[in-house]
Amino acid sequence: MKFNNRNVWIDPSAKIAEGVRIGDNTVIYANVEIGDGTVIANDCVIGEPIADFYENPDYHHPKTIIGKNGLIRSHAIIYVGCEFGDEFQTGHRVCIREKTKIGDNCRVGTLCDLQGDLKIGNSTWLHSGVFASKGTTLGDYVIVYPHCVFLDDKHPPSDQLQGAVVDDYVQIGARSVIMPAVEIGQHALIASSSTITKNVGSNDFVAGTPAKRMKDVRDILLASGEKAYPWPYRFDRGMPWSKIGHDQWLKQQEP
Amino acid sequence: MKFNNRNVWIDPSAKIAEGVRIGDNTVIYANVEIGDGTVIANDCVIGEPIADFYENPDYHHPKTIIGKNGLIRSHAIIYVGCEFGDEFQTGHRVCIREKTKIGDNCRVGTLCDLQGDLKIGNSTWLHSGVFASKGTTLGDYVIVYPHCVFLDDKHPPSDQLQGAVVDDYVQIGARSVIMPAVEIGQHALIASSSTITKNVGSNDFVAGTPAKRMKDVRDILLASGEKAYPWPYRFDRGMPWSKIGHDQWLKQQEP
Amino acid sequence: MKFNNRNVWIDPSAKIAEGVRIGDNTVIYANVEIGDGTVIANDCVIGEPIADFYENPDYHHPKTIIGKNGLIRSHAIIYVGCEFGDEFQTGHRVCIREKTKIGDNCRVGTLCDLQGDLKIGNSTWLHSGVFASKGTTLGDYVIVYPHCVFLDDKHPPSDQLQGAVVDDYVQIGARSVIMPAVEIGQHALIASSSTITKNVGSNDFVAGTPAKRMKDVRDILLASGEKAYPWPYRFDRGMPWSKIGHDQWLKQQEP
Repeated sequence: MKFNNRNVWIDPSAKIAEGVRIGDNTVIYANVEIGDGTVIANDCVIGEPIADFYENPDYHHPKTIIGKNGLIRSHAIIYVGCEFGDEFQTGHRVCIREKTKIGDNCRVGTLCDLQGDLKIGNSTWLHSGVFASKGTTLGDYVIVYPHCVFLDDKHPPSDQLQGAVVDDYVQIGARSVIMPAVEIGQHALIASSSTITKNVGSNDFVAGTPAKRMKDVRDILLASGEKAYPWPYRFDRGMPWSKIGHDQWLKQQEP
Repeated sequence: MKFNNRNVWIDPSAKIAEGVRIGDNTVIYANVEIGDGTVIANDCVIGEPIADFYENPDYHHPKTIIGKNGLIRSHAIIYVGCEFGDEFQTGHRVCIREKTKIGDNCRVGTLCDLQGDLKIGNSTWLHSGVFASKGTTLGDYVIVYPHCVFLDDKHPPSDQLQGAVVDDYVQIGARSVIMPAVEIGQHALIASSSTITKNVGSNDFVAGTPAKRMKDVRDILLASGEKAYPWPYRFDRGMPWSKIGHDQWLKQQEP
Repeated sequence: MKFNNRNVWIDPSAKIAEGVRIGDNTVIYANVEIGDGTVIANDCVIGEPIADFYENPDYHHPKTIIGKNGLIRSHAIIYVGCEFGDEFQTGHRVCIREKTKIGDNCRVGTLCDLQGDLKIGNSTWLHSGVFASKGTTLGDYVIVYPHCVFLDDKHPPSDQLQGAVVDDYVQIGARSVIMPAVEIGQHALIASSSTITKNVGSNDFVAGTPAKRMKDVRDILLASGEKAYPWPYRFDRGMPWSKIGHDQWLKQQEP
């Protein structure tokens, strides 16, 4: 079917594990390493070179690493120098610029545009169409909903760029804008359509443009009357505490 | 020119009508049916399989149906199980996930990302960059302007997902966010940059974040002093009442 | 590496200068002219025909011109009738519709969607994911930050379309919406997440939805206490006053 090797080009220096499947029209550049069980769909570019490649005859091409059991959907462009953990999944047409480090079990949705040098923890998911400036940092178990934008320049244009820092378990509602250099604390919840202009404390629920604190997330109730947050007590699909429960899993993490 | 069959792959089980033209580098999967006169441009994937395809050796590939006289512009990804009517047009790089049903004479703009299981009526147009969650429902003669987002999760993350329901003739201004499960009544008008957090009545003009009712759409005047809405009395390009007038056409629809 | 001519198709009538490099899977249509030193990366379409091409057997294909020393990154779709100056750079997956005129030293970021008939001056940059309606006009040294949207229809749907007009040196913050037909004066600064519903004066700093004037840009200070604006006195990377200073360069421009 798909994996019939039409128009595929793989650099001889690439280290592709035995069980990797590669779709038609895909290009794998030099020094790419792909772990066992990963699928790279059709029309992808893995190890895309930076602009220097086109100009500098002495250009050196660093390593690009994708872990095991991943699924890179079609038309992805993954730049050189990226390193992604195991079970990494993308939607279609993602573009992840150079030197972005992503942990295990992460997802990057269709049309995400990550500008490079990002640091992303484990089990963090970006839904469709997220734009993140260079140097944005996201912790573990963060979920960013569609079309969020992370910025890095307070007084544009400038060369004093500083990305946002988002702590573990944060949920960022769709279409939100995160201004440069802000810090968002653990378990915070950002309402859809917010603009975050200053730091957000742990467990704060914020909303608006500019966003204001509305309440503690632990005071948000579901229709059933149960507490909606912290969310790991009611949602575990794809998360490491799946089937164990969050408290039990937290105990297991203790040294 | 374009239709020279370079690097095209068509599954033998696909049923492609005589007058269909298919661009270079396009892939047509199993059980796809394409009606006469339709153009599938270059670099498209029609009948894209769901993730199960990569994992399950017993994977079965359902039908995907595209009607007559359509134009699918380049780099479209249309998933398996979609069914689209006649005269269906897309911009470039649309991604329409599985089991989306779309009527006749519809348009889906460049970079739209439809997450699957949508139901869309007839003569409904989505402009560029619209994101719609799974299960979003749009009626007939709805126009969604660029970069709107339709959500489905009130207390993210959860598995209690419910898409919005938009009735006939609604106009949704650019960059608006439609929250989960809201219902928008016939002929409503949503201002650009709005966030719709609760139901909108028929003929309501709403604006803001969260959106508030501003007035009845029938009280909005053009610079000329004429009523701007209901819009079918002043706009008919590509609509079924073209040249007949809306009232005359409505009469013809009566049983 | 990349320029090995796999699956490339170039119309015999295209005029490609000696030093142009063209990536795999790229298609160059009739009457395209590309200046010396320009790189067209992989999977691009240059001179993409308008819909008439598919329907009209007498279709005539106008010229498309790209200047010298440009870099068109992969998966760009540049329509027929566009004319771009020298040193033109794009991100990935841009789509620039027909008859768009762009000056020298301009940049159009990843996923930008320009709807045609735009007029853009020199040294103007569009960051990622900008959507601009047909007929939008941008001056020189304008910077548009990610995910901005330029509209053209006051009472949608209609055929009375009029794009915005943006004067020189304007900075438009991320995720802003520019309503139809507004004019934005020289050196104005638009805060992120704004919606511009009426004209903005020169040197005005505006913010909000709808945007209101906050202050004169010359009253905005950096953390250092220095004036942040007009920005050309503190930022020159890639600008023609680089190394000369803005005042000195302005003097050189005088007749």
